[in-house]
Amino acid sequence: MSGSVYGNLFRISTWGESHGKGIGVVVDGCPAGLDLCEEDIQSFLNRRKPGQSKYSTPRKEEDEVEILSGVFEGKTTGTPISLIVFNKTQRSSDYSEIANYYRPGHADLTYDVKYGFRDYRGGGRSSGRETIARVAAGAIASKVLSQLGVSVYAYTKSIGEYEITSFDKEEIMNNALYMPDATTAAKASSYLEECMLNHNSAGGKIECIVTNLPVGIGEPAFEKLDANLAKAVTSIGAVKAFEVGDGTSVSMATGLTNNDQYSYDNLGSIKKLTNHSGGILGGISDGSDILIRASIKPTPSIFATQSTINKAGENIDVNIKGRHDPVIVPRAVVVVESMVAITILDMMFVSMTSNMDKLKRFFIS
Amino acid sequence: MSGSVYGNLFRISTWGESHGKGIGVVVDGCPAGLDLCEEDIQSFLNRRKPGQSKYSTPRKEEDEVEILSGVFEGKTTGTPISLIVFNKTQRSSDYSEIANYYRPGHADLTYDVKYGFRDYRGGGRSSGRETIARVAAGAIASKVLSQLGVSVYAYTKSIGEYEITSFDKEEIMNNALYMPDATTAAKASSYLEECMLNHNSAGGKIECIVTNLPVGIGEPAFEKLDANLAKAVTSIGAVKAFEVGDGTSVSMATGLTNNDQYSYDNLGSIKKLTNHSGGILGGISDGSDILIRASIKPTPSIFATQSTINKAGENIDVNIKGRHDPVIVPRAVVVVESMVAITILDMMFVSMTSNMDKLKRFFIS
Amino acid sequence: MSGSVYGNLFRISTWGESHGKGIGVVVDGCPAGLDLCEEDIQSFLNRRKPGQSKYSTPRKEEDEVEILSGVFEGKTTGTPISLIVFNKTQRSSDYSEIANYYRPGHADLTYDVKYGFRDYRGGGRSSGRETIARVAAGAIASKVLSQLGVSVYAYTKSIGEYEITSFDKEEIMNNALYMPDATTAAKASSYLEECMLNHNSAGGKIECIVTNLPVGIGEPAFEKLDANLAKAVTSIGAVKAFEVGDGTSVSMATGLTNNDQYSYDNLGSIKKLTNHSGGILGGISDGSDILIRASIKPTPSIFATQSTINKAGENIDVNIKGRHDPVIVPRAVVVVESMVAITILDMMFVSMTSNMDKLKRFFIS
Amino acid sequence: MSGSVYGNLFRISTWGESHGKGIGVVVDGCPAGLDLCEEDIQSFLNRRKPGQSKYSTPRKEEDEVEILSGVFEGKTTGTPISLIVFNKTQRSSDYSEIANYYRPGHADLTYDVKYGFRDYRGGGRSSGRETIARVAAGAIASKVLSQLGVSVYAYTKSIGEYEITSFDKEEIMNNALYMPDATTAAKASSYLEECMLNHNSAGGKIECIVTNLPVGIGEPAFEKLDANLAKAVTSIGAVKAFEVGDGTSVSMATGLTNNDQYSYDNLGSIKKLTNHSGGILGGISDGSDILIRASIKPTPSIFATQSTINKAGENIDVNIKGRHDPVIVPRAVVVVESMVAITILDMMFVSMTSNMDKLKRFFIS
Repeated sequence: MSGSVYGNLFRISTWGESHGKGIGVVVDGCPAGLDLCEEDIQSFLNRRKPGQSKYSTPRKEEDEVEILSGVFEGKTTGTPISLIVFNKTQRSSDYSEIANYYRPGHADLTYDVKYGFRDYRGGGRSSGRETIARVAAGAIASKVLSQLGVSVYAYTKSIGEYEITSFDKEEIMNNALYMPDATTAAKASSYLEECMLNHNSAGGKIECIVTNLPVGIGEPAFEKLDANLAKAVTSIGAVKAFEVGDGTSVSMATGLTNNDQYSYDNLGSIKKLTNHSGGILGGISDGSDILIRASIKPTPSIFATQSTINKAGENIDVNIKGRHDPVIVPRAVVVVESMVAITILDMMFVSMTSNMDKLKRFFIS
Repeated sequence: MSGSVYGNLFRISTWGESHGKGIGVVVDGCPAGLDLCEEDIQSFLNRRKPGQSKYSTPRKEEDEVEILSGVFEGKTTGTPISLIVFNKTQRSSDYSEIANYYRPGHADLTYDVKYGFRDYRGGGRSSGRETIARVAAGAIASKVLSQLGVSVYAYTKSIGEYEITSFDKEEIMNNALYMPDATTAAKASSYLEECMLNHNSAGGKIECIVTNLPVGIGEPAFEKLDANLAKAVTSIGAVKAFEVGDGTSVSMATGLTNNDQYSYDNLGSIKKLTNHSGGILGGISDGSDILIRASIKPTPSIFATQSTINKAGENIDVNIKGRHDPVIVPRAVVVVESMVAITILDMMFVSMTSNMDKLKRFFIS
Repeated sequence: MSGSVYGNLFRISTWGESHGKGIGVVVDGCPAGLDLCEEDIQSFLNRRKPGQSKYSTPRKEEDEVEILSGVFEGKTTGTPISLIVFNKTQRSSDYSEIANYYRPGHADLTYDVKYGFRDYRGGGRSSGRETIARVAAGAIASKVLSQLGVSVYAYTKSIGEYEITSFDKEEIMNNALYMPDATTAAKASSYLEECMLNHNSAGGKIECIVTNLPVGIGEPAFEKLDANLAKAVTSIGAVKAFEVGDGTSVSMATGLTNNDQYSYDNLGSIKKLTNHSGGILGGISDGSDILIRASIKPTPSIFATQSTINKAGENIDVNIKGRHDPVIVPRAVVVVESMVAITILDMMFVSMTSNMDKLKRFFIS
Repeated sequence: MSGSVYGNLFRISTWGESHGKGIGVVVDGCPAGLDLCEEDIQSFLNRRKPGQSKYSTPRKEEDEVEILSGVFEGKTTGTPISLIVFNKTQRSSDYSEIANYYRPGHADLTYDVKYGFRDYRGGGRSSGRETIARVAAGAIASKVLSQLGVSVYAYTKSIGEYEITSFDKEEIMNNALYMPDATTAAKASSYLEECMLNHNSAGGKIECIVTNLPVGIGEPAFEKLDANLAKAVTSIGAVKAFEVGDGTSVSMATGLTNNDQYSYDNLGSIKKLTNHSGGILGGISDGSDILIRASIKPTPSIFATQSTINKAGENIDVNIKGRHDPVIVPRAVVVVESMVAITILDMMFVSMTSNMDKLKRFFIS
């Protein structure tokens, strides 16, 4: 098992290394009859592309996606959709030096021990470029979800100590950090410039919201909606914490402050008076917005001097060369959004059989 | 899919409701030749039993486990191990009232909408008693792990604002809160008494450590060790956050402070100078201790008055009766430990095929 | 992996050995709201019970099923249904002798080598009693299918050289061999008596038909409906061949004789003029009856003298004692029917997401 | 679910349509450190290429494979191996006519109903070209198996009524029909020429043998080795029957003729005196050769006139144009071999955890 297959009924298989021929994904289980073209996917990929701002690596990666199968006359056919992004401008020479030592904070050592050797060029399979495949698949999941009335969006909640204090959804796409708060974005930008001057890097938090999800998505015990979102999000490299609703702060709450109380509104609809639970109770969506959060570690590749070891058995000092993002967070926003979309869609599919009455209506019209 | 099957090669299927005939689990994939008896499992179950201290419900649940299959002449046979705990002292009458309204913080509403109705007695399948099955399976996983030299243990890190400030592993089993710090345990106890007086409840954090895990466990992309642990732990009811290593605090760290630098020690062994990563790099164990953390919400069942709705379409006030833990954390310690043990073992199994040389040695001796 | 979990969305986990405490199954993924009681399951189990005729072992096995979970107030709740059949009249003493040698045609040797030892009492996990769990789960799948308008039934097609030459569905339940042709049943009975006199045993064929299955069930490539039925049926001990439609005889057919041609009937409905395909084209149901066939080997336990080896390294002659069926076929009819029902239902569930229009109708009413 | 993912630990995801941009497969779970180059895979693909003899379609398909990922410096890295074969010489114009009617024996109708429409060019996803992906993956599985000492080979056993009467393994690659018996191959060739003259087509049987497989591969209950082989082989389009060992003929055997008796040979090794079981007992390999058989239906595309229906609601007569194989069998030989190799390898992987002693040796050296 190399762990590159994800999902139950909406299932993706990703492949590709940073400096190989390309990165790709096979999406197995997309329903037939969805309008789909390259542009639907490209618009998602463009959100994770580097070189968009000074806080992301100036490497030019074109990351142009091509649909190889599963679409006929502009519509999905119900068979596997194969997507490919050829690697175009990777320069392997940049990386030859790192073949012989282990970069702190990277997977160099663990890959070498696990597999006996590694494709050291740009991190190989452990490179952030692996997420291209997730985003390409996420674009498709998102489009299916939107047809079902469900929407998913993510944004940067904080970088370093700079956390948003206001929320304007329109603002998210207006700044290079994908923050819904222009003032905090400006402060975070200054902080990132300081990090760059110090040859250092920063971390942050990403929040993701799912709106209009029907009640009843998620399964008891192990296939809880939050459990699956936890795996989805934590499977993204650099994510060190997953939270749903009030997250870690529930440890200091009390039953009275943490329980979401109910009431009927004027029209007889059920309302939760608060949403500490993040839209999930007992692992099942409750009709409120789903709200989850990921904490992202600082980019491990930094120019500052670090201690490490080489394969010759020596302790050495290294300064990692190459062009690297001083912060991963903004480019990871669409990756989180993609993994959430894929997971939500898959869990919706899986939930369709929970009820005899609904089954009868589906099969006996 | 009702979501009650977990794991790939070491796979468990759990079943049972709070007030049904019993709770059980089928463990499929336990290797043959392990010494196993009821006592191995009972000692784990006893750690989650209620009535052990004044901070857990005084309900008497005997929770005696019986092995129904998969063991012959004291050894596992390699075939499914079926374990059952009959429910003995559940009184359904306690719960009849809650059939008609939705308790805040519980899964009553989500089950009713998803399934059309629910087994309302004691929460049915969404009851904490569901974890009996996880712990029974966890006891077996833990025993297999110990034979392979790996150990897993968990403890209460905090209750409310009271977080441990020292660590004495021996102390964990000495206090009712399973805290490795007697002083903090005493303070947390006072806080819990206060909660009870206020008809309120408390949350907290549980930490779990895996020692002596070989390097190389965990798979790239979606089957990262941390991603699987995230799902395992977040699948436990009441868990609202999962962290690995420095967790949420990485968002405020920098590359320089967060990277774990390497050196060779005197004997030529690789050492990480710190363990901010929690023993996992690129989703693969790096030979350091695995360190994860779960945040547990306050018990939703409280005696204090809450607003909610009933099925008759009315907004009502409720005071939930019955006997409930003012805090779930101490009893959940062994549940977290169990889910981690099951997941670690399964991931070890899955990792066995990563390398041609090891395969040759296994099949061609 | 011990291989005792089956299915995707309708998933069963079986456990139990011939002479252990019992045999059971956990059914995960049965929709909520199905009326279900023990009698629904017992009527299926009674069809595989021994002691019903002189051609089945006179051992008295009561095989009474008990529902342990997943049903509340007479209806399934959507959570796992745990079923147990306690073993009551097994006498282990009958089997102690076989601990030290390997019975020809049995799994004694393969279990011993695979696991290092085996539960030798009555075949342990490899006993035919394992199928009790399949039949109990099959009864539930069948009941769900009938609610969806689909029916599944099986019968004995041949025993030895005696193959049915006429078909009367009502006759199936009228003779001890479950044959739809009384004349052939009488001849096969004489043949079986001859086998018994010779201390020998017989094989045969079972056929299974699924009617009223909607078009479109089954998935391209690996999850073809026939591929899944092949696995389902071949996973039953003693099955050595699986056929769909014309089966092995297609190898001697031609395109002209084997293709099923189409025409519209008077009402404009599509008709296949023949059904050589057995109701499946490209792995997907085509609206005709599904027709599959299993070939069952003769009971390996026979009284006649056979050569074998013991663990002491000696070649020996054995006469297997105990009470054994001279033919497995009649009792296996309901096992085939059960595995087909489980698989058909699971594939119906899996097929629900193939089409955007149907998804929209399901989620946006 | 579109059903294009196969396997547990050695897992493949295939994609591609007959007349799309290409056909491909992602192989997830190939161990690291295997020497692998395009030629290893091409030699397998060449065995299924058309245009090799007059009994296969004269269409020129170059079917050149390219490795896109998972190999570095000539060795597999343990990460997903993406393989692609671009479609080069497909002429869509040949197929436009069939868009509006349903070819007998094809999946045209079932795809249209399931998905609402279909990629009608050359059968789209239901084309025999889909098997390119299986063979490419099978080449890799076969190479890993050979490193573990296991070999898999297949051949044509019969075409129409012409079944081999002698066996010379070397002969298999010497005739266009891949038969191990030159005399029968000559007779079958004459028969095929007759079929072509009559605008008709033929079926046949393929046999596959696995040698040197260790005892103990395969799992009890549902994951029996034969059950998995049944699914693997029956998932190949046109396969209508699967047999293991004596197959369908066991229905007419008796216990005495069908049981394989044991003895120790002079060196104390265990020998089965016969191999009616086909090398599998209780679903587990017994150390003898694994022997399985597939029955392949006649090519459904024939030039002779057939009755069918069109989408306009009319009954019509059709003569299918284009270039088609008069028999699929010879080109399917390597497809069967590939599916068997993939399945055997996957089951070997899955079997590694059955035994505590072996686990200890693996993890604690």
